Amino acid sequence: MLELKEKPAGGNVARDAGTGAEAEWRGRLDTLYARVRGDTEALAAPLSAEDQTVQSMPDASPTKWHRAHTTWFFETFILKPNLPGYQVFDEDFGYVFNSYYEAVGPRHPRPSRGLLSRPGVAAVTDYRAHVDLAMHALIKVRERDVADLVIMGLHHEQQHQELLLTDIKHAFSLSPIDPVYCEHERAPETTTPVAPVNWQPLEAGIHEIGWREGDEAFPFCFDNELPRHEALIRKVAIADRPVSNGEFMAFIEDGGYRRHELWLSEGWATVNRLGWEAPAYWRRDEDGWSVFTLHGRKRVDPNEPVCHVSWFEAAAYAQWAGHRLPSEFEWEFAAACLPAGDALPDGPRPHPERLRPGMRQDVWEWTMSPYSPYPGYRAQDGAIGEYNGKFMINQMVLRGRSCATPAGHDRISYRNFFPTDARWQFSGIRLATDL
Amino acid sequence: MLELKEKPAGGNVARDAGTGAEAEWRGRLDTLYARVRGDTEALAAPLSAEDQTVQSMPDASPTKWHRAHTTWFFETFILKPNLPGYQVFDEDFGYVFNSYYEAVGPRHPRPSRGLLSRPGVAAVTDYRAHVDLAMHALIKVRERDVADLVIMGLHHEQQHQELLLTDIKHAFSLSPIDPVYCEHERAPETTTPVAPVNWQPLEAGIHEIGWREGDEAFPFCFDNELPRHEALIRKVAIADRPVSNGEFMAFIEDGGYRRHELWLSEGWATVNRLGWEAPAYWRRDEDGWSVFTLHGRKRVDPNEPVCHVSWFEAAAYAQWAGHRLPSEFEWEFAAACLPAGDALPDGPRPHPERLRPGMRQDVWEWTMSPYSPYPGYRAQDGAIGEYNGKFMINQMVLRGRSCATPAGHDRISYRNFFPTDARWQFSGIRLATDL
Amino acid sequence: MLELKEKPAGGNVARDAGTGAEAEWRGRLDTLYARVRGDTEALAAPLSAEDQTVQSMPDASPTKWHRAHTTWFFETFILKPNLPGYQVFDEDFGYVFNSYYEAVGPRHPRPSRGLLSRPGVAAVTDYRAHVDLAMHALIKVRERDVADLVIMGLHHEQQHQELLLTDIKHAFSLSPIDPVYCEHERAPETTTPVAPVNWQPLEAGIHEIGWREGDEAFPFCFDNELPRHEALIRKVAIADRPVSNGEFMAFIEDGGYRRHELWLSEGWATVNRLGWEAPAYWRRDEDGWSVFTLHGRKRVDPNEPVCHVSWFEAAAYAQWAGHRLPSEFEWEFAAACLPAGDALPDGPRPHPERLRPGMRQDVWEWTMSPYSPYPGYRAQDGAIGEYNGKFMINQMVLRGRSCATPAGHDRISYRNFFPTDARWQFSGIRLATDL
Amino acid sequence: MLELKEKPAGGNVARDAGTGAEAEWRGRLDTLYARVRGDTEALAAPLSAEDQTVQSMPDASPTKWHRAHTTWFFETFILKPNLPGYQVFDEDFGYVFNSYYEAVGPRHPRPSRGLLSRPGVAAVTDYRAHVDLAMHALIKVRERDVADLVIMGLHHEQQHQELLLTDIKHAFSLSPIDPVYCEHERAPETTTPVAPVNWQPLEAGIHEIGWREGDEAFPFCFDNELPRHEALIRKVAIADRPVSNGEFMAFIEDGGYRRHELWLSEGWATVNRLGWEAPAYWRRDEDGWSVFTLHGRKRVDPNEPVCHVSWFEAAAYAQWAGHRLPSEFEWEFAAACLPAGDALPDGPRPHPERLRPGMRQDVWEWTMSPYSPYPGYRAQDGAIGEYNGKFMINQMVLRGRSCATPAGHDRISYRNFFPTDARWQFSGIRLATDL
Repeated sequence: MLELKEKPAGGNVARDAGTGAEAEWRGRLDTLYARVRGDTEALAAPLSAEDQTVQSMPDASPTKWHRAHTTWFFETFILKPNLPGYQVFDEDFGYVFNSYYEAVGPRHPRPSRGLLSRPGVAAVTDYRAHVDLAMHALIKVRERDVADLVIMGLHHEQQHQELLLTDIKHAFSLSPIDPVYCEHERAPETTTPVAPVNWQPLEAGIHEIGWREGDEAFPFCFDNELPRHEALIRKVAIADRPVSNGEFMAFIEDGGYRRHELWLSEGWATVNRLGWEAPAYWRRDEDGWSVFTLHGRKRVDPNEPVCHVSWFEAAAYAQWAGHRLPSEFEWEFAAACLPAGDALPDGPRPHPERLRPGMRQDVWEWTMSPYSPYPGYRAQDGAIGEYNGKFMINQMVLRGRSCATPAGHDRISYRNFFPTDARWQFSGIRLATDL
Repeated sequence: MLELKEKPAGGNVARDAGTGAEAEWRGRLDTLYARVRGDTEALAAPLSAEDQTVQSMPDASPTKWHRAHTTWFFETFILKPNLPGYQVFDEDFGYVFNSYYEAVGPRHPRPSRGLLSRPGVAAVTDYRAHVDLAMHALIKVRERDVADLVIMGLHHEQQHQELLLTDIKHAFSLSPIDPVYCEHERAPETTTPVAPVNWQPLEAGIHEIGWREGDEAFPFCFDNELPRHEALIRKVAIADRPVSNGEFMAFIEDGGYRRHELWLSEGWATVNRLGWEAPAYWRRDEDGWSVFTLHGRKRVDPNEPVCHVSWFEAAAYAQWAGHRLPSEFEWEFAAACLPAGDALPDGPRPHPERLRPGMRQDVWEWTMSPYSPYPGYRAQDGAIGEYNGKFMINQMVLRGRSCATPAGHDRISYRNFFPTDARWQFSGIRLATDL
Repeated sequence: MLELKEKPAGGNVARDAGTGAEAEWRGRLDTLYARVRGDTEALAAPLSAEDQTVQSMPDASPTKWHRAHTTWFFETFILKPNLPGYQVFDEDFGYVFNSYYEAVGPRHPRPSRGLLSRPGVAAVTDYRAHVDLAMHALIKVRERDVADLVIMGLHHEQQHQELLLTDIKHAFSLSPIDPVYCEHERAPETTTPVAPVNWQPLEAGIHEIGWREGDEAFPFCFDNELPRHEALIRKVAIADRPVSNGEFMAFIEDGGYRRHELWLSEGWATVNRLGWEAPAYWRRDEDGWSVFTLHGRKRVDPNEPVCHVSWFEAAAYAQWAGHRLPSEFEWEFAAACLPAGDALPDGPRPHPERLRPGMRQDVWEWTMSPYSPYPGYRAQDGAIGEYNGKFMINQMVLRGRSCATPAGHDRISYRNFFPTDARWQFSGIRLATDL
Repeated sequence: MLELKEKPAGGNVARDAGTGAEAEWRGRLDTLYARVRGDTEALAAPLSAEDQTVQSMPDASPTKWHRAHTTWFFETFILKPNLPGYQVFDEDFGYVFNSYYEAVGPRHPRPSRGLLSRPGVAAVTDYRAHVDLAMHALIKVRERDVADLVIMGLHHEQQHQELLLTDIKHAFSLSPIDPVYCEHERAPETTTPVAPVNWQPLEAGIHEIGWREGDEAFPFCFDNELPRHEALIRKVAIADRPVSNGEFMAFIEDGGYRRHELWLSEGWATVNRLGWEAPAYWRRDEDGWSVFTLHGRKRVDPNEPVCHVSWFEAAAYAQWAGHRLPSEFEWEFAAACLPAGDALPDGPRPHPERLRPGMRQDVWEWTMSPYSPYPGYRAQDGAIGEYNGKFMINQMVLRGRSCATPAGHDRISYRNFFPTDARWQFSGIRLATDL
């Protein structure tokens, strides 16, 4: 999957299409399609039929649903309108595997996805094979206009790859028997603490924000990263790394979860209603804090980034620390102009690495920016336009990526978004401070 | 399984134990154990791993949970205290598969059974094999005091066999694709309507009610059928068969679900809150009424007994018909003294047969009797005493059996019980009328 | 109001009507009407307009609603059909003050009664005056057939007098400032403990139960006390007084609220869901138990009857004590044949007196009998038939009376009924024991 | 109350304090205090004790609570710390009338304010008199540092004056009898339609936003209007008046509430969950649309501004109209530089006037700006700092004022804020359009 990012596949493939060696772009798109689709199957491979069926909360979905819904996306938006003679695999699947596209018609209610034992895992595998065959056929014959849609479908599938991991993690975390998604050989916990934060000042002024047309490094973007536009950046410095578990433990020990003055009103109500006293998946036992991970339960490592915190917790932590969260513009501008830092291995991986400096980290980073449209934003026409725009209210922007983000999927203009109480994503905290 | 009923195995096995040919009762108990346990597996056989995992509501349980819980019952109440050296299969299972026995310790919350993908179906199969091996060993060596417990465990398992069917029926009914549990060759729908009800008068007076010690036909009972005691029966006649779908359709057509005066206050509130306008699983379409069954969706057959009605609906129907529900004493006395009627095939079967006269029918029959202890009732000591007594409030008694009841499990003193709004059992209506 | 009981007014008035001195029964009915209606106003007198407006839960109603609803009852069921030329006070009131009579038409939703600031208290007072004037006119001219309805309306009003007290007690109990309904000069708390229970054996056999036509002592009954019928009484003894606060404290100290084996399953769930650890209105502070009463907060007196317990708590206490609750038939038979015991002052009073032996006590007594129709029960025709019968499910019978019951309202065949988790009535416990 | 705005009382009073004629500023503050406090009483005057007691939803509060809470604010934040020897009126009131100040201690739960019949309306009146006496004494003797707090307390009270009207409107709207707060002589409905919208272009560039220190016209601000800072305004035109009822009816007639493509996802879910099909308080009957107002129910006037719409409805309407909502910066810049338009009469008034051009209207105007802190925002220290900052999440900014806003309370930098589904404020819509 590195190709998507390093050899600028993605949009570049599409862009090459009309011009250069036709066989070449078709071949590259075909390979890319096979690779991304295969990655999904590799992520599902450790999961039994039963594992792939359960749904632990309305926000999460069963693994087999992720596998089928991404397939339905290709079938509905690409094959049906663009491949003459395409035979729909099963007419019922449109109802069962539509996520939220109102324009495509009614659909199975989201909170009830876990009640559907059928179609089973084997049928979903057949569905994927059926659609893959047709997609390879389509890639061989259709013109470049469809290539853009294929690339979008692949990025859509990559988003669901990340959700596949976070959703099964949530489901497993509710089990009394601490299931293991995959074993992991880990280096012994280091005793060297992570280096203190370095504050990196940003140059104040008007800067351009948003995806840049023709960007070689990031040849694709979603519509919510557009249009590129000017933003005012004030005098601010940004931390060179996210907050660590060790730092967050100090917040807990200092009564962070019991001091109302650190919290926004709705956050304080949430803390008390849900009984939060630590990040999600943490548990205090006689030996201190343990945490449930996709590798099973383990001790909390103070040198890993704090993770699975809600926006409310991120904001309270920042208040406690005497700083604040960065805006998404500050974050993007920092990512564009600050040194890259140590390279982390490509994802998706089931758990964050220990902290090192840099903007490209293993946890998504909450910003202080509500998820709003950029000035002049326009959603695409038709059902595909329901992709991003209709969620632009009552959510906050996260920037960066996480260990669970597939290689080639992230970019500095990428806008992730979740409600302020969501904790099941790999979400962490980076601080900023006014100068 | 016929043996349980026809050759009075069950409790007889236990009773023979001390007296007669020892090898014989051990052999018969061993055979009986193997047969009942095998029946469970046969019922689960048409269900995939995914099917066995889902839970559609807190009152229902996943198939694999039924398979494991019944096994846990043998392990916990029989093997652990009675088989020296028995190795518990997995210590975690006690937490996962305890249903409601407070005395045995904490347990996984009932509404979350469907979130557990692990232990998986294969692990449950291994668990059953492990316990079966130990049970066969125990039956070979232990004295007759344990035989009673084994028999009780088998009746417990038969109860869960019936629930296995009703629970998967409920889950499948929520699917948009109408899954089929098993195909069924059905005779064409008859055009001959079922014969009108014959009213059978009962002899007024003081009659004995409850399980009779030494009853050859029904050698086992649960504690809630005891003690046998006197009851006053007044002048009443009882219908010779349950209410048919055709008769219930007349109630619907006559506005039965929209006429408050036919309903108890709480029933009327329930009808309006849940939007009931027909029995569960019925759907009105352009051709009239169809119904979801374990054989798939089909037309409602007017000659089958009405089924999947709540107590509220049974009471409203009786009010509409100008009669009433029988008391459980009237029902039991009628079953004891009236002619048996046509024999129905043994269960469990996935769907009721067409109606014929008799007290032993294919639907459980709601009575007007609240589920209360008999005079002098005492629960057994210890955890096993939590079996029946602790549910004796806010439920109504059903008598008889259903198509889903395993052969050998029902008897005329049997007391089934459910809350007044429950509809997912095979529950129907028989009328009585004061003389 | 003594007249209702002592001089057998009530039904006797009605019975006399056709026969004897006409002026006399009219005069007595007129006086009785004035007295009962005046009693309601006296109970409301200590309550401000604000007090009369609040509703603390869906089961309770505002004082002014009780005052107006009882008035609406006379207007709707007596004046409109029977007094030619009667002018309805306000057409809107039918919607606002109908409680649950479906046959009379739609009505304001019960949980929202506390949102209605208008009609105000003064308008309700005018409404009562308007209807009273018309009622006195009607009593002067109509024949005896209406007298029965008037008597029923007065008993209906007396029921609401009791609810008026229990409902405002519940509302006041939620206030942080412990409002006082009325001050009370109380004798100092006695240090002499109440005498131990005496068990009174009942004669086994078939006995008649239900209101007896022509009973001079109790000339009126509700339809749920009919028909009088035979019941089997087994060998049992009944306690000569209810359980005291002191006895119930021993249950608490012995872990009664934390021992699952004492509770029915639904009761145990209720205890844990609602966090019960004592009767309603009790609070443990540094000095022991205090209790909120209509006289304000005071120490729990060990010699008063335990009060404001649910049926679940009554059943758990009986289990703990090694006895059981009486059936409603046992209770009625005991009340009919056992010595009356010390006379308590007539009600309504805001708080129970200390215990003394006898069946006529200051707390309603939970029985083990579900609220079911008597054999051959028939509700009255029309809207008035919605009075009792439609509630005959999922409730338990209480017998006796309470301090809040108006004089002349109780009788030994009286059947009160509430759901198993209700605690806001003056409900206590009397034990029975099998012999 | 005009004085607050026209003669720059408010903050000017405070500013004068140290410098000029001491007697003068004290006298003016004293007069101002008396006037604002008297305005509250005038608003409550048409409401009975019962009216002042009810609470129709957790977001709203009883009238008497508003009257007492504003009084508690003066007592707690001004009198107790600043007036030696001040006697607290009632120690319990701190618990009962604290709204949300965590730092001041525990408080009565907000959704239960309507359960408190005591303290009654008369006690609240006494409380106000007690505090007013002390406040007048304090104003006579304390130095100017307290004047700022007094001014803030008065602005706080004015906010509650507006809520008093919106809250009682909501409560009355739930009544089946359409209560009237006050009668109103209205001119006959005009047949001349309101003039079409004029689009007023704004000058693009960097402009200053936020309250300006030393502003003579608006001598006071809340902390959320600070600090004044630069903002980028893009090329945009803004409508010269809000959307009218007539225009909104066209949206309804065009299926606006049934077309998912016009709504954000959460808005669409809200429409369907709550069954919205028109603004709050509208009802369609045989003659078209009527609306519940504080003057009673009347026909919807197409020339009034549409009102009681949520942010979701405002955004859907803008989508339908092909425009968008303005940002709060665009709104403030427009208000600063565009012509004032026709003067509307001062508030508070119970209902909006018909539309005329201008930025100072009779309905609050939803913007597309989430309620976030301005760059460099700092809340005040201590409990008073809980005033605004802790609500800065998941709410949207409204600008302008409404008919219910007291004279002297609004200013162009004022930031009102409510959640996206709130409809009980006088909230309307103004459009903007990109150029």
